[in-house]
Amino acid sequence: MGNLPNLSELQQQAAGSEHGKPHHLFHRDFGALTEAVERTASVLALTAPERDRQGGTAWAERQALRDSGLLTLAVPAAFGGPEASWPFIYRVIRRFAEVDSSLAHLFAFQHLQVASIILFANPVQKARYLGGTVSEGWFWGNGTNSLGNQVRLVWREEGGYYELSGTKTFCSGATGSDMLNVTAPHPERPDERVFFAIPTKRAGIHVLDDWDNLGQRQTDSGSVIFDNVRVERDEVLGPPGTAGTPRATLRTLVSQVILTEIYIGNAQGALQNAWKYTHEHAKPWMTSGVARAIDDPFVHQHYGDLWIALRSAIALTEAAEGQLQQAWERGDALTADERGRLAVTIYEAKLVAARAALEVTSKIFEVMGARATAAKYGFDRFWRNVRVHTLHDSLDYKLKDVGSWVLTGTVPAPSIYS
Amino acid sequence: MGNLPNLSELQQQAAGSEHGKPHHLFHRDFGALTEAVERTASVLALTAPERDRQGGTAWAERQALRDSGLLTLAVPAAFGGPEASWPFIYRVIRRFAEVDSSLAHLFAFQHLQVASIILFANPVQKARYLGGTVSEGWFWGNGTNSLGNQVRLVWREEGGYYELSGTKTFCSGATGSDMLNVTAPHPERPDERVFFAIPTKRAGIHVLDDWDNLGQRQTDSGSVIFDNVRVERDEVLGPPGTAGTPRATLRTLVSQVILTEIYIGNAQGALQNAWKYTHEHAKPWMTSGVARAIDDPFVHQHYGDLWIALRSAIALTEAAEGQLQQAWERGDALTADERGRLAVTIYEAKLVAARAALEVTSKIFEVMGARATAAKYGFDRFWRNVRVHTLHDSLDYKLKDVGSWVLTGTVPAPSIYS
Amino acid sequence: MGNLPNLSELQQQAAGSEHGKPHHLFHRDFGALTEAVERTASVLALTAPERDRQGGTAWAERQALRDSGLLTLAVPAAFGGPEASWPFIYRVIRRFAEVDSSLAHLFAFQHLQVASIILFANPVQKARYLGGTVSEGWFWGNGTNSLGNQVRLVWREEGGYYELSGTKTFCSGATGSDMLNVTAPHPERPDERVFFAIPTKRAGIHVLDDWDNLGQRQTDSGSVIFDNVRVERDEVLGPPGTAGTPRATLRTLVSQVILTEIYIGNAQGALQNAWKYTHEHAKPWMTSGVARAIDDPFVHQHYGDLWIALRSAIALTEAAEGQLQQAWERGDALTADERGRLAVTIYEAKLVAARAALEVTSKIFEVMGARATAAKYGFDRFWRNVRVHTLHDSLDYKLKDVGSWVLTGTVPAPSIYS
Amino acid sequence: MGNLPNLSELQQQAAGSEHGKPHHLFHRDFGALTEAVERTASVLALTAPERDRQGGTAWAERQALRDSGLLTLAVPAAFGGPEASWPFIYRVIRRFAEVDSSLAHLFAFQHLQVASIILFANPVQKARYLGGTVSEGWFWGNGTNSLGNQVRLVWREEGGYYELSGTKTFCSGATGSDMLNVTAPHPERPDERVFFAIPTKRAGIHVLDDWDNLGQRQTDSGSVIFDNVRVERDEVLGPPGTAGTPRATLRTLVSQVILTEIYIGNAQGALQNAWKYTHEHAKPWMTSGVARAIDDPFVHQHYGDLWIALRSAIALTEAAEGQLQQAWERGDALTADERGRLAVTIYEAKLVAARAALEVTSKIFEVMGARATAAKYGFDRFWRNVRVHTLHDSLDYKLKDVGSWVLTGTVPAPSIYS
Repeated sequence: MGNLPNLSELQQQAAGSEHGKPHHLFHRDFGALTEAVERTASVLALTAPERDRQGGTAWAERQALRDSGLLTLAVPAAFGGPEASWPFIYRVIRRFAEVDSSLAHLFAFQHLQVASIILFANPVQKARYLGGTVSEGWFWGNGTNSLGNQVRLVWREEGGYYELSGTKTFCSGATGSDMLNVTAPHPERPDERVFFAIPTKRAGIHVLDDWDNLGQRQTDSGSVIFDNVRVERDEVLGPPGTAGTPRATLRTLVSQVILTEIYIGNAQGALQNAWKYTHEHAKPWMTSGVARAIDDPFVHQHYGDLWIALRSAIALTEAAEGQLQQAWERGDALTADERGRLAVTIYEAKLVAARAALEVTSKIFEVMGARATAAKYGFDRFWRNVRVHTLHDSLDYKLKDVGSWVLTGTVPAPSIYS
Repeated sequence: MGNLPNLSELQQQAAGSEHGKPHHLFHRDFGALTEAVERTASVLALTAPERDRQGGTAWAERQALRDSGLLTLAVPAAFGGPEASWPFIYRVIRRFAEVDSSLAHLFAFQHLQVASIILFANPVQKARYLGGTVSEGWFWGNGTNSLGNQVRLVWREEGGYYELSGTKTFCSGATGSDMLNVTAPHPERPDERVFFAIPTKRAGIHVLDDWDNLGQRQTDSGSVIFDNVRVERDEVLGPPGTAGTPRATLRTLVSQVILTEIYIGNAQGALQNAWKYTHEHAKPWMTSGVARAIDDPFVHQHYGDLWIALRSAIALTEAAEGQLQQAWERGDALTADERGRLAVTIYEAKLVAARAALEVTSKIFEVMGARATAAKYGFDRFWRNVRVHTLHDSLDYKLKDVGSWVLTGTVPAPSIYS
Repeated sequence: MGNLPNLSELQQQAAGSEHGKPHHLFHRDFGALTEAVERTASVLALTAPERDRQGGTAWAERQALRDSGLLTLAVPAAFGGPEASWPFIYRVIRRFAEVDSSLAHLFAFQHLQVASIILFANPVQKARYLGGTVSEGWFWGNGTNSLGNQVRLVWREEGGYYELSGTKTFCSGATGSDMLNVTAPHPERPDERVFFAIPTKRAGIHVLDDWDNLGQRQTDSGSVIFDNVRVERDEVLGPPGTAGTPRATLRTLVSQVILTEIYIGNAQGALQNAWKYTHEHAKPWMTSGVARAIDDPFVHQHYGDLWIALRSAIALTEAAEGQLQQAWERGDALTADERGRLAVTIYEAKLVAARAALEVTSKIFEVMGARATAAKYGFDRFWRNVRVHTLHDSLDYKLKDVGSWVLTGTVPAPSIYS
Repeated sequence: MGNLPNLSELQQQAAGSEHGKPHHLFHRDFGALTEAVERTASVLALTAPERDRQGGTAWAERQALRDSGLLTLAVPAAFGGPEASWPFIYRVIRRFAEVDSSLAHLFAFQHLQVASIILFANPVQKARYLGGTVSEGWFWGNGTNSLGNQVRLVWREEGGYYELSGTKTFCSGATGSDMLNVTAPHPERPDERVFFAIPTKRAGIHVLDDWDNLGQRQTDSGSVIFDNVRVERDEVLGPPGTAGTPRATLRTLVSQVILTEIYIGNAQGALQNAWKYTHEHAKPWMTSGVARAIDDPFVHQHYGDLWIALRSAIALTEAAEGQLQQAWERGDALTADERGRLAVTIYEAKLVAARAALEVTSKIFEVMGARATAAKYGFDRFWRNVRVHTLHDSLDYKLKDVGSWVLTGTVPAPSIYS
């Protein structure tokens, strides 16, 4: 941490640099927020390769996210937020993922936590948590992964509170967070999840710095140990809580689209870096008969292939995001079948984006050549990020779910992954 | 021809049949025209496999297209037509291509000829040709292919008219047409094309019945011999004609999207037939451990794969159609660069659709099994149609053009194929 | 049938034609039998596209196979045959499949029937059936498909014979055959198959001419009706019969390699036809900047791709054939595990060959262009043949079997398909 | 270096560990040298993931290669070496690449340098350099890359020697080597390369430790600076030298197969690690309905897919190696066309192996799941190694060369890359 420049230095440097020349390829228009988005993206871009190598927590860049004013995007106007649409929020996530997939992930998960409050909390809780997000500038961490975890929630009748003990893994963004969303099995009905929001600094919470992965390296997705942590009754979200309505199950879909946009952002970032490298450094092959790499027919072909893969992913994803927004706006009128069809639409986008991103992030090297593999460029980080993130939940079974729906019209049963 | 049922018989049979059960997959809503579209689609569907085997001209089905009232869709309101949007027209083309790719092609080329008049003709000509299309119910044929043709247009000074001689090939829809759009090299400037509209029955025009191809078998895309055919000066479209403005070059883009929708329609038709067959006839493999083919995990997977391929194609194509409509509406304000970017967008859609359609139409067999290859089903016709039609112009160079644009921002130069 | 030239005419014509110019690509050396193989291949090649259109039985070409002297290739020397190795026989099958996939299939199934006798029959039966194959020039047909058939074998105690009734389908080569191998459920133990060899002309056997498929159109793979057909006790092969030893189960593997070689032969035929067409007719694309199609970089690339797909298939298949021959020569010493590993090796080859052949037979069009889709060339027949034949048994489950072996070392259980 | 265990410690540890359980998949039989090969492989395997992270020079493992006695494998018997066949040497390279792609590369390049001496040197030079390799145990480094280098060789008439100045890059194995093969433009005919062998410790040679790449991290492929380095006349190899005969141009083909085996070795290593992980750690997906990951149908399918990709690569490569050995043994009788066809055969293998290895090393994650991306496993190193190494020379143009040969029979012109 000590070696990293502080934020103001970063901002100064970022102001002087130029990020991304292929201006005809990617949109950079975020309306009134364009300056905030692009300034933050510039800061994230500045040291992304170095920080990828270092891993650990990106304190300065986390601060840049806080300073951006964009952490409240999803907060409804009723609670003082800008109530940006999901399509807009996702475009910002993609923009950040283009330059820094890890910080984009942290940024995205902030909105997922806010969405969780909106979907699960009762009015009092909404006021408390959404209000605090705006007034206190809370950065939220995630403690809701439920695979392979060992936590136990017990009800302390005498004190009138719950107590949480054990360890949760894959807690993205817990490090440096103000608030945590956490899930645990219900004390009496272990098949049910209890979902609650607590301050990260509460006594007994130990956020470990044990995330060391081959991709998404600065997502702070390590373990959190809960050592007899007190959870108040009214910190448990709901009613309605997580299981109330089709609407409540939109949380998973919000998160599935986040994954999708992380893939797309990485693919865009990879393509953009390749584009610059091809222009600036790539050499034509000796028997190609052309003077510049950018005149080689196979280089054209590769760019064409990568581009249409990416375009398919974007087209399906943006359509899915539009439908998600519609479903979001329908509120409790949303039916289980509508929610299910939205899920299928999102799976389609996710599958196409995952494949496109794996392809793009690997094949960029073929339009750059051997010298582009110098470690200093760190061009493999896009593939590593996508490779890791496409394993979050099984794509095989997402594809099976799509096929099953095609054949029978049966929509996937909502779960934490579907 | 004598063996085929006549139209009224066809309509009676079609009325009693049910086409396509996977209602959750494909939209069937064409607003006020739904009944006209679906009734016509039913007629085309009824004997499509048999007619594919027979080849030749589908007289009854051509008549069904005439009777549908849909041949005027593209005619502007100013000339008495419904002035349907291109996205709408393309959806009808796709619907027809689902059941009968050849007749969909003829139907689509009608609108391409109407578009040609709109784009190239002067006001007097528009009134004559578009008016006639509405009042006389003209079915237009195509004589504008320019590869490998041997025609000569000469100016007869004495008579004040042109004379056309020679042969044109790939004249889709010439058989049974009322009017023909024809191109020929300019008598004095052979690099320029002259574009004119003449009645098919004019003296000296011989439409040959020589189309025998492995796909798109009833598109009547044979040769036309021109034997000293008189072409009046005011039958030559323009000014502005073909070369005036970026707008005029939209004709090629209208036609490129037609190709794209023919691919998608075939893919949808293939998938729909496979769906029914899998439900009704397919057997699970003996070691699959499931009782029905529709419960096999690999069958689910295949349907998932085919579906997302198709969905990508549709998403890109519909987006491109929306952009085409915007460009169309901009009229002469359309710039060369805007037109060029639209071309790239359409190429993206076409490439993705071509690949998806080749994949879907071949792989459907893997979810049906060996007995689905009985000739009576004719399930190979979808692949044959797509295989033939994806060769219309070089996909390799379309992909190269996309890649070239990605790398350099250079848009393709307008031509009859780009 | 009457319209087809007779054999001597065919041979005269074939003698004067030249088949296949890309001499550096495919081997044409069959040692002492080169002349017999190549002369027969020439006859098959002469009218293959026309006969594919016609379907039905290729009487003249069946006669050419009889006249070739090659129907006895698999017969052991002890019974007067040449006892050619399986790798040799498979190369002849591939050579024929290159020009005529249907007749290659009939030719291949002859050897499968001979192999069945060798594997299942007792010494007396071998003398009778293998001897007759040599002395009488028997052409064998297949009646051993067991899926979806309805036949019943009963034991007539009074007469001391069996009686067979019912229908078998997919009876390749039954039409025009002298002898038939037939299977039926055992009268008392219906899970067991009884395998017997009977003359096709026996009373009560009705070979139907009802094969009409979209590929493999002249394989005469229609139905055979058995109407109280008498089967003598000693016409039932064995003991040992079909279930005796690992060696006996080699029959399925012999047949799986036949399928594989049919795929490869079609791919070779497709590639060879494309090669000639590209050289003789293909035009370079207008923006390619080259004067000849054979100078186009994308054409080179496509040929490279198709070639390496084909080469992979051939390399694996020839290796598998070598192992099959070794297993064949080990006789009863062959263990179940050795047989199982051979099966996996053959599956690997079959899967790679199936994929290669589907790819090659579809993509050849991309190196030829639109005019190559004229029906007169019949270039789609290669794809149709492969598409049909790759559905013979489930490739999905063959792949699963390979993966299962990789993971666990478990070999597939022998069956009529494995 | 100080942190790494020394060799004897490594050997003790390796002796106690078990490497690779899927014994049915990969052969481990190297005849009389099995123990030497396997012991060395065990040492390389022991710390491969850690050393991949560290990069730099693997001193202990380099020593293990020296101690293995295998550095002389390619030395002819006439010079005291074992004169192992190329197929054998390649199998050892593959075995090492399975566990440590970088050290396998160094090991392989040793044999490439020995091959260079055999092919280019005159008898006196052969005795000196091959003899020294055996008697002194020389480890050779590479200084023959010719792209983007800046070296100048001048003839010092007065002293009767050459002088070399400048920098060469991609000098695999120069660090820690005893001898260097170096190329430079001929002083008078700059289009010709002069090839010479000099001791690494000669005055003026500065081997830099500047290799930092995203794959093949311990290949010591950094730069070497030559500062007025004296090169004796008889250190320049030849005559015949590099340009004499088709045989001399086999050097490039020896090196192209090295690349191919590095790909295959990485793919095998990836598959083997995945195999163990799937067995030991992978969890079935929650909706899979199976209790163990190894029972999941999609896991079987993935293993089947990866396996047949790898098998295709191995089959083509081993066939190519057999042909290379034949060409090697033909000596000066080898014709340019034979050499050219061998080149095409090797390209086929290289292309298939490169694709297979990219696929296998990326897709292994899909049979392991998210937790397999922990950095401690280092499972991404296989992909990084292959990704880097497949860029050594243009695969696009290798494929074009294959296609060009298919179409025209023209073989590639020999060069340092072809």
